Amino acid sequence: MATIDETKSEAGSGDAPKYKVIGTRPIRHDGSDKVTGRALYGADIKVKGMLYGATHRSPHAHAIIKSIDTSRAEALPGVRAVATSADMPEPGDKIAELGEGAVNLNHLSSNNLARTKVLYKGHPIAAVAADNIHIAQEAASLIEVEYEVLPPVLDVLKAMEDDAPVLNPDVHTEEMASGETGDKPSNIAKHLVYEKGDIAKGFADAKYVVEREFRTATVHQGYIEPHVATALWNNDGQITVWTSTQGTFSVRQQVAELLDVPLARVKVVPMEIGGGFGGKISVYLAPAAAVLSRKSGMPVQLVMDRADVLQATGPTPGSYIKVKMGADADGRITAAEAWMAYEAGGYPGSPIGAGCMCVFSCYDVPNGRVEGYDVCVNKPRTNAYRAPGATNAAFATETVVDELCEQIGMAPIDFRLLNASKEGTRRVDGVTYPRIGLVETLEAIKNSEHFNSPLEGENQGRGIACGFWFNAGLKSAVTATVNSDGSVGLLEGSTDIGGSRTAIAMQFAETLGIAAEDIKPAVVDTDSVGYTDVTGGSRVTYATGWAAYEAGKDLQRQIVARAAELWEVDPASVSYEDGCVVGPDKRVPFKEIAIELSTAGEPLVGRGVSNHNEPGGAFGAHVVDVEVDPDTGKVDILRYTAAQDCGTAIHPAYVEGQIQGGAVQGIGWGLNEEYWYDTEGSMRNANFLDYRIPTCYDLPMIETIIVEVPNPGHPYGVRGVGEVPIVPPPAALEAAIHEAVDVRLYELPMSPPRVLHELLKKQS
Amino acid sequence: MATIDETKSEAGSGDAPKYKVIGTRPIRHDGSDKVTGRALYGADIKVKGMLYGATHRSPHAHAIIKSIDTSRAEALPGVRAVATSADMPEPGDKIAELGEGAVNLNHLSSNNLARTKVLYKGHPIAAVAADNIHIAQEAASLIEVEYEVLPPVLDVLKAMEDDAPVLNPDVHTEEMASGETGDKPSNIAKHLVYEKGDIAKGFADAKYVVEREFRTATVHQGYIEPHVATALWNNDGQITVWTSTQGTFSVRQQVAELLDVPLARVKVVPMEIGGGFGGKISVYLAPAAAVLSRKSGMPVQLVMDRADVLQATGPTPGSYIKVKMGADADGRITAAEAWMAYEAGGYPGSPIGAGCMCVFSCYDVPNGRVEGYDVCVNKPRTNAYRAPGATNAAFATETVVDELCEQIGMAPIDFRLLNASKEGTRRVDGVTYPRIGLVETLEAIKNSEHFNSPLEGENQGRGIACGFWFNAGLKSAVTATVNSDGSVGLLEGSTDIGGSRTAIAMQFAETLGIAAEDIKPAVVDTDSVGYTDVTGGSRVTYATGWAAYEAGKDLQRQIVARAAELWEVDPASVSYEDGCVVGPDKRVPFKEIAIELSTAGEPLVGRGVSNHNEPGGAFGAHVVDVEVDPDTGKVDILRYTAAQDCGTAIHPAYVEGQIQGGAVQGIGWGLNEEYWYDTEGSMRNANFLDYRIPTCYDLPMIETIIVEVPNPGHPYGVRGVGEVPIVPPPAALEAAIHEAVDVRLYELPMSPPRVLHELLKKQS
Repeated sequence: MATIDETKSEAGSGDAPKYKVIGTRPIRHDGSDKVTGRALYGADIKVKGMLYGATHRSPHAHAIIKSIDTSRAEALPGVRAVATSADMPEPGDKIAELGEGAVNLNHLSSNNLARTKVLYKGHPIAAVAADNIHIAQEAASLIEVEYEVLPPVLDVLKAMEDDAPVLNPDVHTEEMASGETGDKPSNIAKHLVYEKGDIAKGFADAKYVVEREFRTATVHQGYIEPHVATALWNNDGQITVWTSTQGTFSVRQQVAELLDVPLARVKVVPMEIGGGFGGKISVYLAPAAAVLSRKSGMPVQLVMDRADVLQATGPTPGSYIKVKMGADADGRITAAEAWMAYEAGGYPGSPIGAGCMCVFSCYDVPNGRVEGYDVCVNKPRTNAYRAPGATNAAFATETVVDELCEQIGMAPIDFRLLNASKEGTRRVDGVTYPRIGLVETLEAIKNSEHFNSPLEGENQGRGIACGFWFNAGLKSAVTATVNSDGSVGLLEGSTDIGGSRTAIAMQFAETLGIAAEDIKPAVVDTDSVGYTDVTGGSRVTYATGWAAYEAGKDLQRQIVARAAELWEVDPASVSYEDGCVVGPDKRVPFKEIAIELSTAGEPLVGRGVSNHNEPGGAFGAHVVDVEVDPDTGKVDILRYTAAQDCGTAIHPAYVEGQIQGGAVQGIGWGLNEEYWYDTEGSMRNANFLDYRIPTCYDLPMIETIIVEVPNPGHPYGVRGVGEVPIVPPPAALEAAIHEAVDVRLYELPMSPPRVLHELLKKQS
Repeated sequence: MATIDETKSEAGSGDAPKYKVIGTRPIRHDGSDKVTGRALYGADIKVKGMLYGATHRSPHAHAIIKSIDTSRAEALPGVRAVATSADMPEPGDKIAELGEGAVNLNHLSSNNLARTKVLYKGHPIAAVAADNIHIAQEAASLIEVEYEVLPPVLDVLKAMEDDAPVLNPDVHTEEMASGETGDKPSNIAKHLVYEKGDIAKGFADAKYVVEREFRTATVHQGYIEPHVATALWNNDGQITVWTSTQGTFSVRQQVAELLDVPLARVKVVPMEIGGGFGGKISVYLAPAAAVLSRKSGMPVQLVMDRADVLQATGPTPGSYIKVKMGADADGRITAAEAWMAYEAGGYPGSPIGAGCMCVFSCYDVPNGRVEGYDVCVNKPRTNAYRAPGATNAAFATETVVDELCEQIGMAPIDFRLLNASKEGTRRVDGVTYPRIGLVETLEAIKNSEHFNSPLEGENQGRGIACGFWFNAGLKSAVTATVNSDGSVGLLEGSTDIGGSRTAIAMQFAETLGIAAEDIKPAVVDTDSVGYTDVTGGSRVTYATGWAAYEAGKDLQRQIVARAAELWEVDPASVSYEDGCVVGPDKRVPFKEIAIELSTAGEPLVGRGVSNHNEPGGAFGAHVVDVEVDPDTGKVDILRYTAAQDCGTAIHPAYVEGQIQGGAVQGIGWGLNEEYWYDTEGSMRNANFLDYRIPTCYDLPMIETIIVEVPNPGHPYGVRGVGEVPIVPPPAALEAAIHEAVDVRLYELPMSPPRVLHELLKKQS
């Protein structure tokens, strides 16, 4: 790992580090439990008297439910309750804001337990609670559903056609589109258009123009831990949900809205989470588990298996994208245009908006136009997946850029440096960038040992690509309780997926000038900490870290006031500096004054909240070397380096880990991962043998370069980290494959059959 | 229940209640779980991989441990670890402040696992952890201990004799006594003397003098739930203890001190508690469970059975008390003198100090002298039990007062009204009372329907007595998180024994002007809330309630500031009044503004801490009617009324419950409860069949009169409630028995054999 610390170089502070805790690599607080197997994940909770649940799911991709007969299931000994959509209130067309965007509650409810139609294979229809899992599964199989099977539509462009089977009678393009009309039910749920400058003039000014069409596959987040929810609907009306989720408060709100109970009646207790990547925000099991608990009077646990997870949770959309870009003789972009259609799955909600905003986000585009469509198809309702919508878009744009460079005869790295977005650049969607670090990131790649090492083997090639993600701010809260030995308990509401407990504790420790090891962070339930938005959008280290900073500042103020009282001096003569409370003739470190104040008076409790929304954008640039087997089309990755502007890297090891993990997922998109559907709309590879995520055998060590351009919109300069690194890999791989074997691939994944097909085509 | 509300009558506010929430009777937040069996008590926690433990205990009341052989136990298949005192660090003579007084750590450690001697039957010597409880118990029985058996001393006066067997070689009276010297090891651990005025002159001025000797038995708190501790000593050095306790922070400190680990390494998670009454403050199992966990690598649970609880936890001391009081011709007390010796049990620590301060606390004594001794005997080390030390003392004083009244020919109620302590009265120990309500309480009894009903049956009698307890303040912390629907999560560190969750929530609700039902109180672990002292000393409603009030005030300030920002008006023009934030032309209730602010900006989190120590004293006066069976000596209670100055009664039903529960326990002391030891020091009635606590079949409904003299030292006038009601019953019963059958009883319990013995003595 090499680090380029702009702060240091600009501040000229030489070797003196700016921070004491930030930038170090303390052991994570939850590390021991996680490596010894002691950590409790979603399915590890066993509540006294708990029943086990199972779900009856649709075998059809598209059908009308004519009737549901649960009588045989109910009659099975050991069955305690059966739930169908009839047990859930009808939410009507209410729209709820759920942390990461608005959701139509009728759709969300029907996605939990189907009402009138099933829209994808695996769509849940009923759930059973029984004394054990075997009885539950048998009972689920005894539920009889009468269907009117309809033809499924699985392709985004076909779904947009006038005569396509329509999934949702309540979806009309006119509802949400800009400039379109029509009240006919449609699969097109949203139509977006962004424009900047004069697109016609832009292309007229271009000397070089490339236009290509791209397709990307439906891919899944592939988290290790399947979904699970355990719920107790208590006699007093209080509902407790234990679940592994990216957002306890979001689960609380969804459960309350879907079951039509007051928010305060629902408590969500976070378990450790075995990966989420955006896919553990929507609820899939908790409402049904709660209904089963209400009906049975006992706590109920519902767990998915891997097939359920792949078939019926929220993968990222497959998409069709057409990108056209033009550049002048100097290689300067004159115009860029994109037409994008993203598969929403069964219900509206693809990340088409983000896709549209990201598609040209790395470039200073003087004239641009982006048009996007959110389109329902008979697949599971898509959900967020690491930089949702951006990877699809970047695959298209970066590949077109690579071809442009080829035409111009310009090195791709130099083209990008010339056209890179920087502070003041206005995106096609109208947003103007604050201080960002794309140029520094590209320079880090250009100056890297990897980029400057020769690559001379046969069928080998090198590609680069870059990527962008917005990052998010939103709301967070932290409470800090100072123990009588000067250690601090830190309560937070951000479920910890990537080490955020430690990254937040470090910012708190930095603020008070104490060691990260003196903090005991805990992720607590929704009753025990202030409202905190989801762990997503790369917001946690930024926003919850900021709340921790505020909690530290709050404690500083209290300590100053109480020390002044204790020392009988004017409070104005006391300050908190460098980990010490400083009086006219005293300088006492935090731990000492904490002990003194704890002994003398009231307990010390600090609180911090944040709701800032200047997370800064984050940019990554990746370089990859591949070797293509000309006989099989298999692509081997020889070397991979990812550079990224992370703002200040709080815990560099976790920053590296995020970059490595994101790059690997992007490699999965690029080379192997895809949902394989048959014509009936049945996924044929719903398991981890046939759905091929990269393993350590497929990969070299992912090298990382942390570029630190501090975010001026955060007290410690934090930007989000986790999402950008998934964005560049497919395009970088495409460019590398092209350099290696001189074929172009416009469809993901670039799996051996596809590469071989292109190789054979070239030979013929 | 009748209520005398001084506030109302003094303020002349007529029917308008002063408070909206305080004084009402909302359903307790934990009620449903407790009546349905869903609440999790100490032994209900089952941690993944948990081992079951058993303890090897001494069969001797007094012996030197010559050797411990654990080899046979260790060799038993299924045994994972054996712990003895050799596995615990030697704390030396360190004294630790543990919430309710200082403790010699060497004694505390030896009381958990005996080191060189056993000092009472049931003294724990070793503990075993095994795969199941049966193996653990068998292994515990295989531990071989070689003893040198010593003669036990069980009587407090005998233990004070020069030639008595000495329990602790490190206990010397001189260490702690006032005015005595001598470095010879002794059973006398403490000697206290309080003096006021001229005792000789006082008795010279007396026309009437009564001097009597009293004995009280060792009695147990008799909580339903036995002690239990589950501990995990994790690989990373963090120790988690799940236990039902009166003080999580006290358990944390004891475990940390006894195991010599940093405080911050220990997290104590409170389970629901099935009674404590003072007896669940000291640790008995947690350190051994932690050591077993360290040695086995697994979590370990240790549970006591009832015999363990009675023989080896902390009952209240048996005592010898001599009281002499003098009064002048008008019935005014001229002098009072007490000589008191309390059994400490195996290690020093009886509540002799409180006993000395309480013995004359109800009376204005111009000349007084109190001498007290803390004396080790071969019984379990005593511990706090509801108004510790006060009931023993009141039995003596109130009985002497009753005899004085008989001599003077004055009604006991009038004697007490004449001599009652009031604001400004200085106690013999030097403390001067603030505003207190003894006079009002006595008047409440005097005016009560019960007191004014004739009692004319044969062998029936009526007695009255009064009692006092200090109450305590100490430290508490509360955190309040406002949900986006205006409900509030309230985190507190006070384990809830008597409904304090609700009483604290009500004070918080009153402060913000919302409903108690909108609060979701939770008792959380030591990492999750600011330091909070034990649930004891009748401090929780006072101190944690005050912290809740401060948290409400903190939220008020934030709401005012943020509403001003939202409304774009001068903050000085905004205030919080009567549950609403009030601006120049607006008046918005809390719930509305909470929703508005939650939507607009940062989460709302309030914190409150308290460390006030003006809890006010509390006084009770009881009247009881009995009928004595002249053939058996059995005393039946016909009617019982307890009046008490509770300050403001936050939740009157819980106040009544505390009064009723305390009175019933006092009745148990008075009529039945006692440890029966044989000459070897073996308790012969260590079960709930032979150790007779009163049941509902023994009792009438206990009538209560809540007298409200608000405590000026609390924002809502709260005084403690829980302890006083145990104090008067034995003396009131003695007076009633005397009136019924004209015998005097100077020893507790006044069980049928003792009463019969006195009846037969009178006849002969």
